[in-house]
Amino acid sequence: MGEQVVTPYSVSARNGAVDYARIVSDFGCKLIDPQLIQRLEKLTNKPAHPFLRRGIFFAHRDLESILDAYEQGHKFFLYTGRGPSSESLHLGHLVQFMFTKYLQDAFDVPLVIQLSDDEKFIWKDISQEECQRLGRNNAKDIISCGFRLERTFIFSNLDYVSGALFDNVLTISSFLSSNAMSAVFGLNAETDVLGKLLYPAVQIAPAFSTSFDDVFGEGIKMRCLIPCAIDQDPYFRLSRDLAPRLKLYKPALIESRFLPSIEAGDGSGKMSASSPNSAIFVTDTLEEIKQKLAGAAVESVLAYLTFFEENDAVLEEMKADFSSGKRSLEDLKNDLSKVLWEVLENLQQLKAEVDDKILSEFMRPRLIR
Amino acid sequence: MGEQVVTPYSVSARNGAVDYARIVSDFGCKLIDPQLIQRLEKLTNKPAHPFLRRGIFFAHRDLESILDAYEQGHKFFLYTGRGPSSESLHLGHLVQFMFTKYLQDAFDVPLVIQLSDDEKFIWKDISQEECQRLGRNNAKDIISCGFRLERTFIFSNLDYVSGALFDNVLTISSFLSSNAMSAVFGLNAETDVLGKLLYPAVQIAPAFSTSFDDVFGEGIKMRCLIPCAIDQDPYFRLSRDLAPRLKLYKPALIESRFLPSIEAGDGSGKMSASSPNSAIFVTDTLEEIKQKLAGAAVESVLAYLTFFEENDAVLEEMKADFSSGKRSLEDLKNDLSKVLWEVLENLQQLKAEVDDKILSEFMRPRLIR
Repeated sequence: MGEQVVTPYSVSARNGAVDYARIVSDFGCKLIDPQLIQRLEKLTNKPAHPFLRRGIFFAHRDLESILDAYEQGHKFFLYTGRGPSSESLHLGHLVQFMFTKYLQDAFDVPLVIQLSDDEKFIWKDISQEECQRLGRNNAKDIISCGFRLERTFIFSNLDYVSGALFDNVLTISSFLSSNAMSAVFGLNAETDVLGKLLYPAVQIAPAFSTSFDDVFGEGIKMRCLIPCAIDQDPYFRLSRDLAPRLKLYKPALIESRFLPSIEAGDGSGKMSASSPNSAIFVTDTLEEIKQKLAGAAVESVLAYLTFFEENDAVLEEMKADFSSGKRSLEDLKNDLSKVLWEVLENLQQLKAEVDDKILSEFMRPRLIR
Repeated sequence: MGEQVVTPYSVSARNGAVDYARIVSDFGCKLIDPQLIQRLEKLTNKPAHPFLRRGIFFAHRDLESILDAYEQGHKFFLYTGRGPSSESLHLGHLVQFMFTKYLQDAFDVPLVIQLSDDEKFIWKDISQEECQRLGRNNAKDIISCGFRLERTFIFSNLDYVSGALFDNVLTISSFLSSNAMSAVFGLNAETDVLGKLLYPAVQIAPAFSTSFDDVFGEGIKMRCLIPCAIDQDPYFRLSRDLAPRLKLYKPALIESRFLPSIEAGDGSGKMSASSPNSAIFVTDTLEEIKQKLAGAAVESVLAYLTFFEENDAVLEEMKADFSSGKRSLEDLKNDLSKVLWEVLENLQQLKAEVDDKILSEFMRPRLIR
């Protein structure tokens, strides 16, 4: 099946399963161990999110430093993002945003969310206007995860890249050669268009608080923690290499596994917004969820329950009952559709209230620290 | 002496003299002929600027189209710029801005002036803050050439690149490969930093009116005429190649020779702000002008008189008297220092009135068409 390849542009497994241990060792990040989770619980005075307890967010870079600083009273900010290539988010995206919301609430810290509409314009055959429209739609889904307006700033690159953020993009682009881009991202320095070669600088820059004069205050230096799926690691590895030259903090990372596609539950791939049937979207109805789960593999169903059934005891019971034959696969699918519908129904109700005015408020540059 | 090389980054002559005929044929631009000058005079109802009559602005691309459209009542806009690498402008820069002012007045058209502080940051060892400071200083010199506030917008790339301009930079960067950058600009696609590879897109984008939503109105398509020294041609050749793909007008160009350095009057090089003694700066006193001219070659003195003595009859008389021995080189230098001092004294008086408030007005995005 060839070698495993994990870059921000493609994830391909070897022999049908993503080898996460191999990624961690290849990338040079660290596994999150039980001690670190305990420390996090103690510091936040909250139980760890199921995604942490169940090893879904399983790897990190420098999370200890963030916790050390937090313990001494130094706040940090969260940075995450979304490349708007579909009308709405799917469950794989929700994993990232649900976890980000948990972090925002647990630490009471500001959060910036990048809509990389510029990236989608450069990479896909979509106009800038359409990328921005998709981005605004996606932002409504994101807001519906429950983020707090007074601590959250969502920005479209096409709109917001300028001033302090552009200064940092430029500074970063003064350190990167296109050769480095080909080494880190597998881009072709000879033939790939400049937009592709430049984009990493645009994704890297928001990891530095000085990119947000109007959001954190001019020249404010804060640490950054980035919750993301592990395929985004190369961007931020690069940002960590650059930080000392910029005399800024190295961004820390907390990284997740991929939510598998419905058909291939063994972890052989990422759920993809580009192939609608492999994914459950936040706009799906209970009926649609049931239909999509009809052809799901056992491994998928178990994986999805592990991601989305919040109650540990209930989850264990489901699994045990299935092992012992007390529950059939059909039963599990029924359970799962209820679990997923609870998540989505809640989100859809919140979304009904997110109008353009609220969206504009979230996207208005203003102090959020 | 090797081959003649003319790029935006270096101008080197072969056998001591820039071969302008060769540049025109290599670049594929056209010479400005007397018919074109006559047409321009007729359309503007003004005598042509001495720089045109004397072949200083000597080459063009598509100037006819601009005049055709103008004749039919379609206005265009002017775009020129300055890379702020010195405290003040020298006479070589003045050539460009004096001519631009003539064009603005003759056609009554809006003008955008790019301060490429981002370029200087990327190419020189100067901080972004310092590049912006130099840019603001240079802008005061530029304003002192007499540009009209209601028709002129000066912008710093570090400040202004965003929104519609960034959209166009991005669109342009989606068409350019780093290979193309190496073919056109002699950049090294393998090792040059991304900032260098990207910069051409930032210089190209303002040649399209759609980059200036807040200056020309949203989505307004206007033709563009770019007065510049001929070494800038590669940028705009590229912008003309891209225009059809962007469904925008091809920018037109009107291109000048270089003002030679004081020492080497035969046209072997550009006057350079980086070697202060080769150049007369707009801040120089009459005494400094005289000192700098002391060691000047005959060819330099004659060239400078041709650039800056506005009166054709007076210029011819000076040249004839020098040929016949009626005037010595010493006399000519005296004449020249008076001519130059008249230009600079006038400019320095105007500059005394250009305070930060006026500068901010010129740099404030607002409708200028």
